[in-house]
Amino acid sequence: MRKIKELGEFGLIHHLSSRLKFRASDSILGIGDDCAVYPANPGVKQVISTDALVEGIHFKLNTTPPEALGRKALSVSLSDIAAMGGTPKRALVTLGLPKKLSVSFLDKLYSGFNEICNQFKVELSGGDTVSSPKSFFINVTVIGEAKRIFTRKGAKPGDLIFVTGTLGDSSLGLNLLNKKNNGGKDNKFLIEKHLEPTARVEEAGNLAHSKINITSMIDISDGLIQDLYHICKASKVGARIFQDQLPQSPEFIRTCTKNKISPLPHLLNGGEDYELLFTLPADGVKNLSRQFLKAKVLVTQVGEITLKPRRVYLEMSDGTKKLLPDSEGFNHFYV
Amino acid sequence: MRKIKELGEFGLIHHLSSRLKFRASDSILGIGDDCAVYPANPGVKQVISTDALVEGIHFKLNTTPPEALGRKALSVSLSDIAAMGGTPKRALVTLGLPKKLSVSFLDKLYSGFNEICNQFKVELSGGDTVSSPKSFFINVTVIGEAKRIFTRKGAKPGDLIFVTGTLGDSSLGLNLLNKKNNGGKDNKFLIEKHLEPTARVEEAGNLAHSKINITSMIDISDGLIQDLYHICKASKVGARIFQDQLPQSPEFIRTCTKNKISPLPHLLNGGEDYELLFTLPADGVKNLSRQFLKAKVLVTQVGEITLKPRRVYLEMSDGTKKLLPDSEGFNHFYV
Repeated sequence: MRKIKELGEFGLIHHLSSRLKFRASDSILGIGDDCAVYPANPGVKQVISTDALVEGIHFKLNTTPPEALGRKALSVSLSDIAAMGGTPKRALVTLGLPKKLSVSFLDKLYSGFNEICNQFKVELSGGDTVSSPKSFFINVTVIGEAKRIFTRKGAKPGDLIFVTGTLGDSSLGLNLLNKKNNGGKDNKFLIEKHLEPTARVEEAGNLAHSKINITSMIDISDGLIQDLYHICKASKVGARIFQDQLPQSPEFIRTCTKNKISPLPHLLNGGEDYELLFTLPADGVKNLSRQFLKAKVLVTQVGEITLKPRRVYLEMSDGTKKLLPDSEGFNHFYV
Repeated sequence: MRKIKELGEFGLIHHLSSRLKFRASDSILGIGDDCAVYPANPGVKQVISTDALVEGIHFKLNTTPPEALGRKALSVSLSDIAAMGGTPKRALVTLGLPKKLSVSFLDKLYSGFNEICNQFKVELSGGDTVSSPKSFFINVTVIGEAKRIFTRKGAKPGDLIFVTGTLGDSSLGLNLLNKKNNGGKDNKFLIEKHLEPTARVEEAGNLAHSKINITSMIDISDGLIQDLYHICKASKVGARIFQDQLPQSPEFIRTCTKNKISPLPHLLNGGEDYELLFTLPADGVKNLSRQFLKAKVLVTQVGEITLKPRRVYLEMSDGTKKLLPDSEGFNHFYV
């Protein structure tokens, strides 16, 4: 096993960066100087976000293949760019490395970075590589461009609330990941949804280029309710969510039934689905449905925006209403 | 002692961000959404860099006051922007927080961020806050703008090599920091140079706006020789350094003499001075000296660029020459 120490800091940077394939055609300087340098296209806005994954909190090395970790570390930041309607362009990666990691592990991690960079045409333009004896961490900064931006502020009473894809898969997948005997097709599907979320970059890009009047948007990283509260707070509105309309994958339904797991906590508070959560007035629904049908991506109305600020209610199957508290989502300080 | 857990992730972000004072006049969105959003000025290049500081590697909590740590974490990244001739504009800060840290510690850390942001007119526009049970880390990404950029590539044989300020202070300061009985004025000066380096943003900005033909530039983070090797490799040249011309502070000289410390290793290989190291043809020296005299900042010629690639020699006081090996600088993987 080749050790990182044998290469040294600069040898390692050279070794890893030589594996990166995608290069933006307009870059002025990539890896290898004090900064990455690039031009900004006139008439577009710059959008930038940064996210860290810490060993033991966001992933465990014994359950996460390094390629998947590389893909996820980038996807999580790309998802933030998508949530603003941006097109990701460049990424900077900081690695905090404990001695236990081998060069071969990092090669696989970079394979994961490479895949996502190629898929979304994102250049890995720089970063930092430091020793971190006690824990492994990855910090990814992604810079993108946007003509039209979506924010959390702008949802209006009467707007309908939509989500892409299905909910709760990642959260249930995380539970399964930590259990023994987690083989089988359904388990595999759910675990993969946790380990390898897909950033909805294309879908958000399509919405940004459409004429649909999206009034607010966020990506679901902390759970549906928590992220909906973010929209409600910024927009000074409330919301109601219909239990019967929460989109669930067949794998999620079968696994909950089989193992007598209550689906609701996963659907409402499960983090890391990285689906888009957004609002629009009712007259935009036809266009929206047409667009998602064409893209073959599921989009579901899950509720509507209400007048009373900061109140999110769940309307249950039996007709009763329940006020959902804030801060029940995935909170890194309670893990 | 108020604990971070009491505030929760979002409460903490709100608490800390409400303390930030400097806001760029052209920002579209700062802290509080998925991304920060800003326009790019036409005709300027975007420069971006990211740097991490890890507890136990880059700082110890028992020797580093939180305000100083905040100032240093930002200064280190600002120094990279300066080294390219850029003007820093925005920063994103990721904090990896162990439970032992209190809200009051973070308040002081943010006071440090605030000071540097105000001094250099940099907006703290976003970031991420995660739990990191085993070690405290800070990752700072800084984005700046530059009309004219300085790179490592471009030094030519015959060019003269300059450094700003004095060398070795930070490295000697680090040694003193770890010792007992480190009181006294000289010790205090050197320790402060280690704990609180100043990014040469103004000096680099003045050079970028001047007509001086700077052919290459880097900031000294890994030590004079290591960083000079970075220039030599990128420019495919060699260099010679004159021992007698290495700029030393009176405090450095007195402390070395008093404690019988050999100054040379600190001057050549001491990291974290964050001074500028740059090259220019001889005919630019008069302009350079005039500019630095006016700014009351020390600038010293320490050597010259030579033809033979990747060979850096030291010309010693006694007239002998010594080939200096690559990779003797501050290397995070050997600490």
